[in-house]
Amino acid sequence: MAERVSKVGVGIVGPTGYTGLELIELIMRHPAIEIAYLASARTPAPAIDEEFPRLKGRLPRERVGCEAIDSGRIAERCKLVFLCLPHEAAMEQTPGLLAAGVKVVDLSAAYRLREAETYESAYGHAHTDVENLAGAVYGLTEFARERVRGARLVANPGCYPTAAAIALVPLLRAGLIRANSIVINAASGVSGAGRSPKANLHFPEANENYSPYGIGTHRHQPEIGQSLRRWGIPPFGEDLIAPGIEGCDDPLFVPHLLPIERGILETIYALPVSDGLKTSQLQEALCEAYRDEPFVVVRDGDPTITLRDVQRTNRVHVNARIVCPRAGRAGREEPRVVVIAAEDNLVKGASGQAVQNANLMLGLEESLGLV
Amino acid sequence: MAERVSKVGVGIVGPTGYTGLELIELIMRHPAIEIAYLASARTPAPAIDEEFPRLKGRLPRERVGCEAIDSGRIAERCKLVFLCLPHEAAMEQTPGLLAAGVKVVDLSAAYRLREAETYESAYGHAHTDVENLAGAVYGLTEFARERVRGARLVANPGCYPTAAAIALVPLLRAGLIRANSIVINAASGVSGAGRSPKANLHFPEANENYSPYGIGTHRHQPEIGQSLRRWGIPPFGEDLIAPGIEGCDDPLFVPHLLPIERGILETIYALPVSDGLKTSQLQEALCEAYRDEPFVVVRDGDPTITLRDVQRTNRVHVNARIVCPRAGRAGREEPRVVVIAAEDNLVKGASGQAVQNANLMLGLEESLGLV
Amino acid sequence: MAERVSKVGVGIVGPTGYTGLELIELIMRHPAIEIAYLASARTPAPAIDEEFPRLKGRLPRERVGCEAIDSGRIAERCKLVFLCLPHEAAMEQTPGLLAAGVKVVDLSAAYRLREAETYESAYGHAHTDVENLAGAVYGLTEFARERVRGARLVANPGCYPTAAAIALVPLLRAGLIRANSIVINAASGVSGAGRSPKANLHFPEANENYSPYGIGTHRHQPEIGQSLRRWGIPPFGEDLIAPGIEGCDDPLFVPHLLPIERGILETIYALPVSDGLKTSQLQEALCEAYRDEPFVVVRDGDPTITLRDVQRTNRVHVNARIVCPRAGRAGREEPRVVVIAAEDNLVKGASGQAVQNANLMLGLEESLGLV
Amino acid sequence: MAERVSKVGVGIVGPTGYTGLELIELIMRHPAIEIAYLASARTPAPAIDEEFPRLKGRLPRERVGCEAIDSGRIAERCKLVFLCLPHEAAMEQTPGLLAAGVKVVDLSAAYRLREAETYESAYGHAHTDVENLAGAVYGLTEFARERVRGARLVANPGCYPTAAAIALVPLLRAGLIRANSIVINAASGVSGAGRSPKANLHFPEANENYSPYGIGTHRHQPEIGQSLRRWGIPPFGEDLIAPGIEGCDDPLFVPHLLPIERGILETIYALPVSDGLKTSQLQEALCEAYRDEPFVVVRDGDPTITLRDVQRTNRVHVNARIVCPRAGRAGREEPRVVVIAAEDNLVKGASGQAVQNANLMLGLEESLGLV
Repeated sequence: MAERVSKVGVGIVGPTGYTGLELIELIMRHPAIEIAYLASARTPAPAIDEEFPRLKGRLPRERVGCEAIDSGRIAERCKLVFLCLPHEAAMEQTPGLLAAGVKVVDLSAAYRLREAETYESAYGHAHTDVENLAGAVYGLTEFARERVRGARLVANPGCYPTAAAIALVPLLRAGLIRANSIVINAASGVSGAGRSPKANLHFPEANENYSPYGIGTHRHQPEIGQSLRRWGIPPFGEDLIAPGIEGCDDPLFVPHLLPIERGILETIYALPVSDGLKTSQLQEALCEAYRDEPFVVVRDGDPTITLRDVQRTNRVHVNARIVCPRAGRAGREEPRVVVIAAEDNLVKGASGQAVQNANLMLGLEESLGLV
Repeated sequence: MAERVSKVGVGIVGPTGYTGLELIELIMRHPAIEIAYLASARTPAPAIDEEFPRLKGRLPRERVGCEAIDSGRIAERCKLVFLCLPHEAAMEQTPGLLAAGVKVVDLSAAYRLREAETYESAYGHAHTDVENLAGAVYGLTEFARERVRGARLVANPGCYPTAAAIALVPLLRAGLIRANSIVINAASGVSGAGRSPKANLHFPEANENYSPYGIGTHRHQPEIGQSLRRWGIPPFGEDLIAPGIEGCDDPLFVPHLLPIERGILETIYALPVSDGLKTSQLQEALCEAYRDEPFVVVRDGDPTITLRDVQRTNRVHVNARIVCPRAGRAGREEPRVVVIAAEDNLVKGASGQAVQNANLMLGLEESLGLV
Repeated sequence: MAERVSKVGVGIVGPTGYTGLELIELIMRHPAIEIAYLASARTPAPAIDEEFPRLKGRLPRERVGCEAIDSGRIAERCKLVFLCLPHEAAMEQTPGLLAAGVKVVDLSAAYRLREAETYESAYGHAHTDVENLAGAVYGLTEFARERVRGARLVANPGCYPTAAAIALVPLLRAGLIRANSIVINAASGVSGAGRSPKANLHFPEANENYSPYGIGTHRHQPEIGQSLRRWGIPPFGEDLIAPGIEGCDDPLFVPHLLPIERGILETIYALPVSDGLKTSQLQEALCEAYRDEPFVVVRDGDPTITLRDVQRTNRVHVNARIVCPRAGRAGREEPRVVVIAAEDNLVKGASGQAVQNANLMLGLEESLGLV
Repeated sequence: MAERVSKVGVGIVGPTGYTGLELIELIMRHPAIEIAYLASARTPAPAIDEEFPRLKGRLPRERVGCEAIDSGRIAERCKLVFLCLPHEAAMEQTPGLLAAGVKVVDLSAAYRLREAETYESAYGHAHTDVENLAGAVYGLTEFARERVRGARLVANPGCYPTAAAIALVPLLRAGLIRANSIVINAASGVSGAGRSPKANLHFPEANENYSPYGIGTHRHQPEIGQSLRRWGIPPFGEDLIAPGIEGCDDPLFVPHLLPIERGILETIYALPVSDGLKTSQLQEALCEAYRDEPFVVVRDGDPTITLRDVQRTNRVHVNARIVCPRAGRAGREEPRVVVIAAEDNLVKGASGQAVQNANLMLGLEESLGLV
């Protein structure tokens, strides 16, 4: 066996939510990074294995107790921290951590929307760290790999936007679908709503249930629109993200709550640019885009993609097809494009992609620890 | 208390599936009809309370054992039978039952599609009872009440088509949405797939899972199209159902499997006929259509409609809204219509609507036994 | 059909929890009683169909709005009320309602334990209505039918205690099992814990989970002990309930939380009084006790009893057997008795039994409305 | 980073069931072993990523296709194989694999029961490889570490027996509980029943359900008894396993089916050897036994142990307590011992423990790859 190699120390700020736990589980199995600091804003700081008894005996004794959020001390032990905080708290902590020389992967939405104005309109409060917003890299790794490698601050993408962009960017880029015809029907497990008890997430309410929410008003809608414009519409570019101008508005986004713990599946509808478009062209565009990507699997149409295929992996499974409900009859002129994309909202949709980004920021192999 | 009034005898042919059980539960509580015959094709005929131990002690002793499918004997005891058989078997049994003078509510798809050709193309086998097909009444009760009242054979609608037609007919009829823009994203509990074990419905596979299936190819797609043309497109009429001609093709229909027992929720997307259309106009069209309907509830937008609101009731909950993802920005010209409709697939989507139809066929109050 | 007969008015105080909803659903289908008053302590009083949108359109318009808890006005419309309040609130409201001439079925634990001292030790607060405690009838209907018929105040039994007493009383009474050897391993759906969100009942925590709780310390343990002594140990009698003296202590009771909405299944272990005891003797004792009971089903050993058999019915399914792990080998002298009992915690374990009791108190047929 | 070290090749025979998939997932993350052969008896041999689409892109291309079960070719690439076959097939394949020089970890029950006679009575067919049965090591790693290290054939323990033995052996060994008083009430997720669809495991049947099965007749009962006698009763020894003689019969074992994918929780009841026994003594015996064990966590009583604490880990969580239902009253002389033990049936109860054993057999660190 190889002799033990010292690992890179990283921290988690706000480890008591579901993305925090997922990060801990991922890092415990990671061959090259290790948890060097768990920071909590709570007083007294909790023991992480009291919060999550499943961690008992799995962490080094000195890592069990959370510590205060102290940038200086964090910087002594960590090259990078994962922020798992509410948006506002993330904007408060980020400047100090960056100033202390720690790289930051922020799992909140604080630095995802390039324009502070869009952020404020979506999240309902002012952006308090516009300075760092300008330099933040939106870490949808497959499209931003080189920028992530050099970043000091990565805004880890939202769960729904990750699957949506992976599904749609290659089809837009190849000029196969009409940008303004896109409708994203999405469904997510309850862990995406966080760990705080709520009336509609009380077990007897959410169990055996299913419902839409935030129809056309969800905060991830502008984030999806930004990615489609940035990477799907020519001239492609990091800063070409304003809606309207490029002929690609935010798509209609309708999320639903599934009675399961984890997983997101998006069923996406669009119109083809030309009536003669074939399924094979759509699939080729996806295959071409993701040929060398370890974390995107382009699936055939059969068997169908299910959440079970992606849960607890860092992968997005995706496929696309043309559907003509009345092929062979007169009438319908417009065939439809249906794209399916699935991921685990806590892995590729949050903590897994965060580790993927951290690997790059730390100069490690991108897929380390993400089997 | 009122003295005991004798009840009308009805039969169930094929009571060992989920729609059969649901019918038994509904009829046991019904004040005016009672089970007089349980007919099974199995040899030996099963005891229904061995099939479903939850029925033990709840049925009269003489009703526990299923009997052979014998039209003559059924006719002696029953004015009406519910057929809960596979499509082919339903076409075999119906002529004899009708000939024996028994009214029939068929819960299979055998008599739903008015054109034998459409049936054959959707179900993959020949229609073997074209004679009765011509006289069958498609029992979407809210739109066919008077015809059902006089019918000898009612084709009970499919689960998905019931919710879709309830949601869309008034909006089409009022000229608010473009027929050929409709996309129906639906999700159903597993009971809709029947009681036979299958690999993908094995508990550890279906549990915590979610997936699309039959994308654009599901058998209910032409049934939905037929209802939209029949009742949604002028000149409205029972026989104006051919696609293409009327400018209303079958809509794109994409069902998904939910990890729950029962319930269907459809999230329906369409383009408004005019850009200035308002949510209030959509809601008014629905309210107007269903003002006096006991089994359709037009809901406000908030709180959202959930499956829990309709499970184990005979009701459809429905609402509609206009969504403009980028209101206030340049760019998007086309606002979208989003319609939500939910029902219990085993009640309004099957056995409940069957009882609703049977009530009418037997001259009873339509809502009896369907609290 | 019978002409409409006027129904008896009843009220529900505290209808916004799960037992309240279940009562409303049961009474809506009841042929002889109707909801005449919904009383809530909240200000402003909620509309019940906002609390539970599934009730929309199913209640008379004048019953939708909850009203204040006003004994006088309740008495004008109601012969009987169901109290679905916290224990302390039940003790506050009961005296006034009784004084106003209204009969009361209390679904809280306030009047279940005959000795105030036992109540106080189990519930951790003083009993504030000892006067009515003395006259309250513990409404385990199968064992207290005649007393319930004449009662003004019925303490509706706890969910776990109902199944436990149904399972064990006949076996104790027949002298077949040793009272002090009883261990009750129980499992319940989450609805038993009420409608208030809690951290351990948050969907992502309770889902796919299972755990014991209140091991040997649950409040239902003394209630079970009281029933076993009262009805299982000679000389049988309403007031012979003190532990210790009669040789029947409280049994060990260990409840578990199941990741389902509803249902209780108890797996009960005991030692037989004699080594030669046979399964047939146990089953005969149960059959004998419940021969004429509409709501207890004595099941054979095969197929096994499942929760699905009793959910949404007012029935307890029960059976008992002798098990000798090493039959045919030397060694084990003590065969074991295993008793299984299942019920729906919200029906026979709460609201269904409450209606059963109300039927008797109102001079109606006991099983009315409880198909 | 360490340079890449070559890994030890292992095979899986029968990889298309749930234990096979779990092994693949574990080995993909393992730092020192790798899959070198997937052998299936099916013709044609399936592609493993068609069986489990979640594996797509995660295995080397040459490992995707299953190959025939060919001992010689397996031996060329593998030092060790995991057998995930039905019991009879395991007895057929084992001799050839051992003869070819491959070490075997058998996940079936074929080699678990030391006496062929006991096997035959529990499993209902003859043991066809008595020769290797004699040399097989029962791999409950915590109690058999040294023997496993030297073994060529390890019988990987059953899921229920693993938790039961971990929970009870230290308490028996310390002389704290009465062997013949033990009752094990267990509950398991559905994955324990395998991947073949069955009527009672069809989603709409198993979902929202819970039931006992195999009451006192489950095949794991004698396996549990064997472990208790072997390691719990003096004189402790591998071969002292016959029931009756040592005063420790098989305990009463009652499993239940939970509506979840995975996890086993056992609630175990026993009588203390002396009335004065304290919870602290029970806990000390457990702590003492498992002080240095990486995969056993002795938990305090609060918060309670839940399945969530152990799912997808290789750990057993356990605790024990004394309960006196009527402490402070007269009457009860016999306090009870309640032991709780939880594990993941597919990890510590199957594939995880198999890897733990394989690590030892291959001279690797026991906990490698089992974070």
